[in-house]
Amino acid sequence: MDVRKKLSERFAGVEGGLFSNVTKADVGDGFSAMGKDKVTLMGWADPFYPDPSIPEHIKQVMIEEIQNGFPSHYIMPSGSLALRERVAKKLKQKNHLDVDPKRNILITPGSDSGLFYAMAVLLDQGDEVLVPDPSYPNNFLDPKLLGATAVSVPLAHDDGYSLDIEAFQAALTSRTKAVVLTHPNNPTTTVFRKENLEVLAEFVIKNDLMLVVDQAFEDSVFDDIEFITPASLPGMWERTITVFSISKGMGLSGFRVGYIAACDQIMDAMYGAAVNVLGASNTLAQLGAIAAFDAPDFIDPYIQSFDYRRKKAFEIFGSVPGVKIEMPESGFYCWVDVSGLGDSTDVMNYLVQEAKVAVNDGKNYGKQGNGHLRIIHGCLGSDEEAVLTMRRMADALVKYPKRNGE
Amino acid sequence: MDVRKKLSERFAGVEGGLFSNVTKADVGDGFSAMGKDKVTLMGWADPFYPDPSIPEHIKQVMIEEIQNGFPSHYIMPSGSLALRERVAKKLKQKNHLDVDPKRNILITPGSDSGLFYAMAVLLDQGDEVLVPDPSYPNNFLDPKLLGATAVSVPLAHDDGYSLDIEAFQAALTSRTKAVVLTHPNNPTTTVFRKENLEVLAEFVIKNDLMLVVDQAFEDSVFDDIEFITPASLPGMWERTITVFSISKGMGLSGFRVGYIAACDQIMDAMYGAAVNVLGASNTLAQLGAIAAFDAPDFIDPYIQSFDYRRKKAFEIFGSVPGVKIEMPESGFYCWVDVSGLGDSTDVMNYLVQEAKVAVNDGKNYGKQGNGHLRIIHGCLGSDEEAVLTMRRMADALVKYPKRNGE
Repeated sequence: MDVRKKLSERFAGVEGGLFSNVTKADVGDGFSAMGKDKVTLMGWADPFYPDPSIPEHIKQVMIEEIQNGFPSHYIMPSGSLALRERVAKKLKQKNHLDVDPKRNILITPGSDSGLFYAMAVLLDQGDEVLVPDPSYPNNFLDPKLLGATAVSVPLAHDDGYSLDIEAFQAALTSRTKAVVLTHPNNPTTTVFRKENLEVLAEFVIKNDLMLVVDQAFEDSVFDDIEFITPASLPGMWERTITVFSISKGMGLSGFRVGYIAACDQIMDAMYGAAVNVLGASNTLAQLGAIAAFDAPDFIDPYIQSFDYRRKKAFEIFGSVPGVKIEMPESGFYCWVDVSGLGDSTDVMNYLVQEAKVAVNDGKNYGKQGNGHLRIIHGCLGSDEEAVLTMRRMADALVKYPKRNGE
Repeated sequence: MDVRKKLSERFAGVEGGLFSNVTKADVGDGFSAMGKDKVTLMGWADPFYPDPSIPEHIKQVMIEEIQNGFPSHYIMPSGSLALRERVAKKLKQKNHLDVDPKRNILITPGSDSGLFYAMAVLLDQGDEVLVPDPSYPNNFLDPKLLGATAVSVPLAHDDGYSLDIEAFQAALTSRTKAVVLTHPNNPTTTVFRKENLEVLAEFVIKNDLMLVVDQAFEDSVFDDIEFITPASLPGMWERTITVFSISKGMGLSGFRVGYIAACDQIMDAMYGAAVNVLGASNTLAQLGAIAAFDAPDFIDPYIQSFDYRRKKAFEIFGSVPGVKIEMPESGFYCWVDVSGLGDSTDVMNYLVQEAKVAVNDGKNYGKQGNGHLRIIHGCLGSDEEAVLTMRRMADALVKYPKRNGE
C-alpha cells in the first residue's frame, strides 16, 4: 500500500517546513549535523542560542518549584490563573487591552501552536486568508493545513514593506475570511505604523473580516517607533485574535509559553477545545514565566544588545558590494537583499561552505522573499562573537563568485 | 456584530470540553473554586495529584540543566534526538516496534496535541472515524474539529467492553477513513486482548482503513494481561499512528511530553508541519524525560500503589447497594455503574455536596457512558488518604436519596 494516499489532502506534500534545506522526515537533524561541522547557527530565532541565558531570578524560582515536587502535575488547559493575571496586567500596560484574565486569556505551549489554533477556530474549508508577503512561513502553510487557502498579498517594498491596502483590496474575494499579520513583521522587521494599521482596520471592518495578529517580536522595537496593538484600535477587539510569546522578547524560547488574547465569544470555543488541540502548557515553565513577568527588567540589556547588533549588521552587510540592507526596525535579525549576488539559496549554501554560518533562505517567507536572506544576529551570547561571525559572512560574500556570463 | 457567526463551523458550539460541569469560557476555574471549598479532586487523571511527585534523580538532572542555563533555548520541533533514541529503545523492548529514532519518532507537547495531530494528518472534510464508545472524550471531538465525523461504535458491555467487530462492520461506510482506539481503554480500563485486536487489524486491513491508537495508559496493566501494541501486528505498522505519553505511566503529566511512532511516509508530513501544529516541546521537560527513561524503575512502586488502590476501589464501591463495579484491568481509575442510584450527573453533583469529592460524569465518554462515573483513585500521594476518600464517597452513596416514586 502507498500510505501517502491515506494522508489528508491538507497534509499531502508537506515536507521540511521550518527550513528549506532539510532531508525528508529529518527536520532539524540537518542542523544538528551542521553543529558537528562547526557551523555557527544564525538561522535560529532564539536569543543568544546556544549560550546559557536564563536569568538568575527565574532559575531560582524554577529550582524551588522542582524541589517542592509539584511540577509533575498538570495545570488546566486554559493555563495558570496566576500567570493569566500577570499577562492581563502586561496587556493593559503595554498593549492597551483591558481584559479579564479569567475569560480573555489562554496560555498556549508556545506561539506557533497558538497561531495555528487562532486560525483553526476561524477557518472553514474553502475560506481564504490574506497574508502579507513576505511574512512568517506558518502564515502561509497553516491555512492550507486547515483546508483554507492563503492568498499572498505583496507588501509595499518601496514603502518600507508597509501594508499596501490596494493590494489587499485586489486580493479580496467573497471567500475571504481573515487577514493574518505578523507585527512587527518577520522577516522584514517592519513595525507597521499607526496610520497604516488604521487603514487595515478599516478594511477589515468594512469587509466584515477577522484579523489574526502574531506579536511575537513586540518587545524589541527600536528608534522610538510607536508600537500599536491592532486589537486596541476602535472596533477591532472583537475582530482580532492576538497571539503573543515569551520566546522572543523574554528570550525564553525553550519554555514554550505563549498566550492569546481574544473576546469572550472566541474564548468560549478556544477554552472549550484547548485540551483537544493544545493539551496543556508545561507547568514549570508557567511558574517560571510568572517570575519573568514579576521582574521583567532583565530584558532591558537584551534589547540594548539587539540594538547594538542591528547597527553592526547594517554596517557590515551594507558594506558588501551587491548586497542591500535597511536598518532593522525590530527584533534580533536582519533582512538582507542578496539578489545582486545571485540566487538566495545558492548564497545561503555558499555561506555554509565558505563562512561556516547557516542562515535562512528568504524563499521560505513568501514569493517576495526571493533573493533575500534572514540573518539572526541575536544568536550567540556575546556581542563580540556575533559581530565577528557577521564579519566572517561579509568577508565571504565579498568573494562571492561571479555568475556565469557576468 | 455577533462574533460567534465568524467562528469555524467546526468550532461553533464548542464549550467546556474537559469536564461537563464548567462555566463557559472558564474551564478549570470551576475546579479551582472547588479546591477552595476543600473538595478533593478525584476527576483529574494525574497520578498523586496534588501531592509532590517528582523522582529525585529527575529533579537533580533538571536542576543541573537549569543551572547550566541552556533550557531557555528551543529544541527542534521533531524533538530531542537523545530523547528519541531513548524512546526507540523503549519501543523495541515494550512495544515490539523496531524503529529509526531519526525517522519514526516525533516528540509532542503531551499526548493530547499528539492525538489531535495524528488525526489531522489523516482526516479530510467529510471523512468518518469509528470511535469505540465509551472512550476518551477527545476521540469524539477531535474528528469534528477537523471537519470529519466521529461515528460511535458501542463496545460489547456484556463481554467486558471488548471490541465488537460486528458493531464496527455495521458502522462502516464508504467514507470511513480510520479507527481511533484508546488502549488500554479510558474510562473502562479495558485492555483489549490479542485475539480481539487481531480481528480489529483484519477489519482495518480488509477495509483499507488507518488506525490511530492512544496508549497513554499502557504502563499500568494488571493481572499479567498480555499487552499488545496494535502497530506491531502483521500488516499494521504502515496503517497505524501510535500516540504515547509520559504523563500517566511515569506520572509526569505537568512535563507535557508525549511521543508518536509512525512509518516514514506519515512522518514526512508530521515532521514537516510539526512547527505549525505543535510548535516544539519544552526543552527542560525533554531533558527530564531522558533521565526518566534512563532509570525508569521509579514507576514500579507507582504500579504497586495503583494495584492496591484498584482492589480497594473494587471492594469499597462494590459494597454499595445499587452500585456496580468490575475489577479495573489497567490505569489508576475505576469505572463505576451508578445507574441503579439515578442519573450520573445527579450522583456526581451529590458527591461534591455530600462527600466533598469531585469525579467525572460518564456522559463525557460517549453515549454508553451514561449512568457511570469515572473515579481517579490514583490522585493523592498517600494510599491511605486515597482509600479514606473513596470510603467517604461510598458512605455518601449508601445514603443516596431514593428517587421520586421509588
